[in-house]
Formats: sequence, C-alpha cells, structure tokens
Amino acid sequence: MTMINQRWEELADIKRVLAKRDWFPGTSGNLAIKVSDEPIEFLVTASGKDKTKETDEDFLLVDREGKPVKDTHLKPSAETLLHVEIFNKTKAGCSLHVHTVDNNIISELYGDKGKITFRGQEIIKAYGLWDEDAEFTIPIIYNYAHIPTLAESFSEFVKEDAGAVLIRNHGITAWGRDALEAKKYLEASEFLFSYHLKLLTLKAVLV
Amino acid sequence: MTMINQRWEELADIKRVLAKRDWFPGTSGNLAIKVSDEPIEFLVTASGKDKTKETDEDFLLVDREGKPVKDTHLKPSAETLLHVEIFNKTKAGCSLHVHTVDNNIISELYGDKGKITFRGQEIIKAYGLWDEDAEFTIPIIYNYAHIPTLAESFSEFVKEDAGAVLIRNHGITAWGRDALEAKKYLEASEFLFSYHLKLLTLKAVLV
Amino acid sequence: MTMINQRWEELADIKRVLAKRDWFPGTSGNLAIKVSDEPIEFLVTASGKDKTKETDEDFLLVDREGKPVKDTHLKPSAETLLHVEIFNKTKAGCSLHVHTVDNNIISELYGDKGKITFRGQEIIKAYGLWDEDAEFTIPIIYNYAHIPTLAESFSEFVKEDAGAVLIRNHGITAWGRDALEAKKYLEASEFLFSYHLKLLTLKAVLV
Amino acid sequence: MTMINQRWEELADIKRVLAKRDWFPGTSGNLAIKVSDEPIEFLVTASGKDKTKETDEDFLLVDREGKPVKDTHLKPSAETLLHVEIFNKTKAGCSLHVHTVDNNIISELYGDKGKITFRGQEIIKAYGLWDEDAEFTIPIIYNYAHIPTLAESFSEFVKEDAGAVLIRNHGITAWGRDALEAKKYLEASEFLFSYHLKLLTLKAVLV
Repeated sequence: MTMINQRWEELADIKRVLAKRDWFPGTSGNLAIKVSDEPIEFLVTASGKDKTKETDEDFLLVDREGKPVKDTHLKPSAETLLHVEIFNKTKAGCSLHVHTVDNNIISELYGDKGKITFRGQEIIKAYGLWDEDAEFTIPIIYNYAHIPTLAESFSEFVKEDAGAVLIRNHGITAWGRDALEAKKYLEASEFLFSYHLKLLTLKAVLV
Repeated sequence: MTMINQRWEELADIKRVLAKRDWFPGTSGNLAIKVSDEPIEFLVTASGKDKTKETDEDFLLVDREGKPVKDTHLKPSAETLLHVEIFNKTKAGCSLHVHTVDNNIISELYGDKGKITFRGQEIIKAYGLWDEDAEFTIPIIYNYAHIPTLAESFSEFVKEDAGAVLIRNHGITAWGRDALEAKKYLEASEFLFSYHLKLLTLKAVLV
Repeated sequence: MTMINQRWEELADIKRVLAKRDWFPGTSGNLAIKVSDEPIEFLVTASGKDKTKETDEDFLLVDREGKPVKDTHLKPSAETLLHVEIFNKTKAGCSLHVHTVDNNIISELYGDKGKITFRGQEIIKAYGLWDEDAEFTIPIIYNYAHIPTLAESFSEFVKEDAGAVLIRNHGITAWGRDALEAKKYLEASEFLFSYHLKLLTLKAVLV
Repeated sequence: MTMINQRWEELADIKRVLAKRDWFPGTSGNLAIKVSDEPIEFLVTASGKDKTKETDEDFLLVDREGKPVKDTHLKPSAETLLHVEIFNKTKAGCSLHVHTVDNNIISELYGDKGKITFRGQEIIKAYGLWDEDAEFTIPIIYNYAHIPTLAESFSEFVKEDAGAVLIRNHGITAWGRDALEAKKYLEASEFLFSYHLKLLTLKAVLV
C-alpha cells in the first residue's frame, strides 16, 4: 500500500466513525491528513459530499496552499485554508473539523470570553497532560464568513503540533501529530463540552 | 440502471441513514423522490411499514396526484398529498418528512408565532445562504387531521425549489432539488432545533 | 419456514433493533410472540441473556401458563407471567417489555396519579386513533417484587388487543395484534415520554 | 478454542458493544478478563489504542502484578493496577473501566459525600438484589494521578466478587464473576446515573 492509500484509509476510518455519531450534519465538517512533508501535500475532503457515504471521490490531494495537485472536477472543502495553516505552521499530521450541538453551545456561551479552560478532569490526559492540576484551554474565535480572514484569525492559535480551536457558532478544529492524536483531541474536547454543559445545568437547577 | 432504480436506491439510502437515527418512530415519517418530469411521477413510501426494514415494497410509484401508477396492493403514505404540492409547484426532486422529539418541541414552543427564524449560525450555509447575517425562517402550520386541508395550508409555504415547513406537534417536511439537498435541509434544520432548545435551557438556568 | 421459525425471526428482528438503541440495559427487558392459538403457545426470551448477542437460545417456547413446552435447560424470563396475561386475555400476538431512562422517569413523576394521558400529538395515530382531539392513557402500576402479584395488578389493564402499561421505576410493556403493532405502540410511547419530559423542562425554565 | 482465545473473544465482544456507545472517548477506558487462576493471569487492553478498531494487539496477557507474561512491544493500560486489585482480592473474572459524561457528573455531584446510593429501582436486580427495598451503594474515590496510590484507595472497596466504584471526574470500574456479570453491573450503574440526573433536573425545575 502506498503512503497515499494508507493515509486515505486512515482518514476514511475516521470519517466512518464520526459519521456514525452524526457529527457531519448537512454535509458540514471537513477532514485532512498529511501525505508528504517535502513538498507538503495532504488529502482533504471534497466539498459538498454526504459524509455517510463512502466513495473514491471523498478526498482529494492538495498542496501546501490547498490547491489540487492534479486536474480534477473535485473541489477541496471551502475551509481547506484552516488545514493549510496547521500543516504549514506545525508538524501535525491530521486535522479534523466537525459541527456538534455541544461545541456550538460552548462556543456561544463562552464566545465573549474568547476561550474556555478545563481542569480537574481525568480526560485531560488525552491532551498529553498528566499532572493532577493540569488545565487545557481552547480558544474561541469569531466566525468570519470570509475564509481567508477566518484562517488568519485561526492561525494565531496554531502553535503546537496538537491542539484545538473553537469557531463561534460554527464548530471545532482539532489536530495532532497523527490521525490517532487528532481524533483523541477531538473526542476529549467533545466529552469535556458535554460534561461541562450538563454539570452547569445541574448545578444551576440544584441551587 | 434505469432512472427508477437509481432513484429507488437514493431514497433507500436516505431511509437507511435516517432509520439508524430513529427518525421514524412508530412507523411514522414518509419520503418521496421524483422519477420523471413529464409526466410528473415520484416514488413514495408505502403506508404503515417498519422503516428499519428494507424490502422491495418500501416505495411505490405514484402520479402527480399521488395515485399509484400501476395496480398494486400497496397504499401510498397517507401524507402523499404534501409531496404532491412540492413536486407540482416547484422543481424539487426529493421531499422528506420525519418526526423527531426536537422538531415537535420547537413546533409547540413557537407554534403560536407561526414560525421560527435562525441566524448567526454557520450551519445556515446548508440552506445555500452565505452572508454573515443571513437568516432562515421555517414556517409552522396547524396540524389538520384532514390531509387535504393540511396540504392546502402547507401549499402556501411551498414556493422555492428547496425549503422546510414544520407541522405543529407532528414533524418537519424538508425538500430540495435532489436527494442530497433535501437531506441537507433536513439535517441543518434538526441541528438548529437541537442547538436552539439546548441554548434556551442553558441561558434560562444560568441567569 | 414453519410458523415457529417465522415468529422467531420476527422477534429476533425486534430484539436486534431495540438492542441497538440500548433498551435492554443490564440484561433487562423481555419479549414474547405468539406461535399458536390452540393451544396457546408463545416464544419468550430466556432469562439472563445479554440481548446484544444473537444465539439459538435467545427464546424458548412456553405454554399458556408460561411453562416450557419441552424439556430445556433454559428458563423463561422472570416476567413471563405478564405476557401470559396478555395472550390469555386478548387476541394480541406480540408483547414487548423494555426499561428506558425516560419511561422510568415518567413512571416516577406520574406514579402517584396512576396514569399519564397524551393528546394533541400526531404520533397518537400510531395507537390507531385518528381524531384531532384523540387521547391515549397509559396506566402506571406499582412495581411489586412478587411477580404473581405484579401480574395480577397488571392484568386489570389488559383489556384491548393492543395497549401499553407502565410499571413504576421498572419499565413499559406494550403489546399488539402482531409484532409490527406491538413495536408501534412501544415506539410511540417512548417518543411521547421523551417529548413530554423535554417540553416540561423547557416550559418550566422559560417561565 | 483455547481458554485464552475464548476469553479474548468475550472481551472483544464487550469492547465492540461499548465502543458503539462511545464509552471510550479519547482512547480512554480499559478492560480486563481473567484467563487462569493458578497462576492468576488476565488479558488487559493495551495502552493508547483507538477502541473503535479491532486488531490482534488490542489486549495482552499479564500476570497478577499486571506485568506482561511474554516479551511484547505492547504496554498494558496505565490503570492495570486497579484490575490487579480486583483479581487478587476477589473471585471476579472480568473488570471494566469506562468514562461517560453521566458517570463523571455523578462522581462530581456526590464526590464530597464519597458515595451514591440507589433504591426503589427495578434495575437494582441486575446487582443480584431482589428485595423490594434493596439498595446499592457505589463508593466515589478521589482521582489520584499517581496510579499506585489510586489503586490503594480503590482496593479498600474491593471486597465482593462483583461491584462498582466511581473515581471522581474520571470514570467507573465495574466487575463481576464473569464477562456477563461485569457488563450487567456496568450497564445497571450507567442506567441509574442517567435516570438519577434526569429525575433530579425535572424535580428541581418542576417545583
């Protein structure tokens, strides 16, 4: 299996698992995985597809600017520029963007603060933090409709090889050194969002 | 594959995916896909079937009045007249009707206002609206038990080739130019309903 | 296919679908389907099995008193006596008993009133009620640990060929003339429970 | 099939079912099943795997101290020491540890009390308690980052051949004489957590 086939399979696997959770409502969401470093090339989801289906047009290969490497009728996902930031600025190998009800709610409730911080939770170890008092902060940025502006704002928070950023009333982008780490960051974040919202509600009504 | 087989597969695909989400409780819900324009003929779900099963009697072909094209023991879904309005009045190719807890709650909470409007949400792009301040309104109509009366009331809001209408304490009908667009309208609406209800609750308890 | 094999398949189908929804937590729940009328014999789930698995020991044939028809090491579900009431007193062909969080909550909140009544909801048509102002009442009985006493209390509400009864902090039993109708009664009830609890919460917090 | 293969299959089955419920967010969770009594040896999940996948490196065989029986590049799950306590102190055959939003919320809300007690619920029979007024208590321990300290604190509550312990803001460990019983304890506990949280909310808002 060539590198591109191997990476395709890894990304298709993640797409299948996340689609079963209905994390791609209304054809939303997009996924990317790096195939080579020199030059930087990555597979990214083609625009406008129903992600509950599996076809050989689900992904296409793009370069470090997000442009298709070969002639194709497929269009890279509109938000490919965000993945471009990640692969150009870090050693990340995989980047995942999904819309869920809970990540949208968190982004709206904490949007004015520009971030949410989690601590005192075992699942924080998924971020590679093992101290008892470790904390993890997820920035929340404004959802510019103009994608290059959104990418620029997003870029400010792309410093580490693994991380997560929320876009207000839009969704989360989580990335990592490989597919497993990106998925781990994504799932840990969604778990923390759901936990936080439920605890907030219970504490409020139980006063 | 003939056109009718192709459309059958498309509709069966949607039925399978929505059934996995339990969007057809108690044999509710019905789906339709256009097969030809002249004359207008469409496939519609047969009445009273368990939609978690897949059989060659799941759909039947009906004409522009919703009557079976051939002799058959199958009965078109009781609410076929709503799909009739859509295919006669617009260029829509597919129409989906489902009952979910959240679309029922929204229809009850906003039923007296006769509509619900969403704005400031990325997922609104699923409706083909790309402006930062775009908004999308879903009308809510009274649930007449008499289907022809319901269809008449429904018809008033069937103007575009893609759209969505809520029927109070009943469910949503979403349609689009093809199966993908109809499903996109449906999923975006359900996402917005769930988001709205959860945010409403959190904002209320966090005061 | 013999009648017993056919009924086995029908019940196995329902078990599979309900297991995917996690409606059999902790090996709870039990299912029954009638195989013959004279003498009355029905298949019932064997006691203590994990219902996410499918084996040829999932069900066993019992008589109108709930006793195994043949020598077997399998034990009929502890609550077989409730299905016995249904098959002896009505023309029902199938009876389903499941534990869900929402049916338990409803049974606790309305347990003192001894019933819950639904109206003004499209899904009520699943109970075969087509009037605009139709209503459907589900009785809630005390959860006697002594099964014969529970069966006696339950029997009081077994009058129709299709129906549903809640047992407080225990679960629901729904039955119908055939497997499809029993499942329809079950799903409509669970939909109404979830709808009711969510609407109750929203109305309370939005005051 | 050898004993180790048989146990492997049993544990793989449980992993598959729990993974479908998303009970292993961010590669969290770990599972163990005893293979022999003299000497005590058990299969335990390898560290850091994505549990939605199935491979022949999902589990490895360890001894009564949690050390690999054979040379291997696989590392036993970091929390193997908790399973060590269970297999050394009781006759349990299987032990399951998962993170869910609801078990985390319960552990936080009742953490200061150090326990939560359930009664008056049919599902309590899953714990082998058949009296009408039976009650079941789940201890909640502090989540020490230092695993040997956590194991020591955990050990205090490992007395029976079947049981369950919550670790605050971390997850639940449930065990039983065999795979079926461990799963039963786990599912009954999760059902009770979800039921309790929802009832608490409804009772609070309906005052």
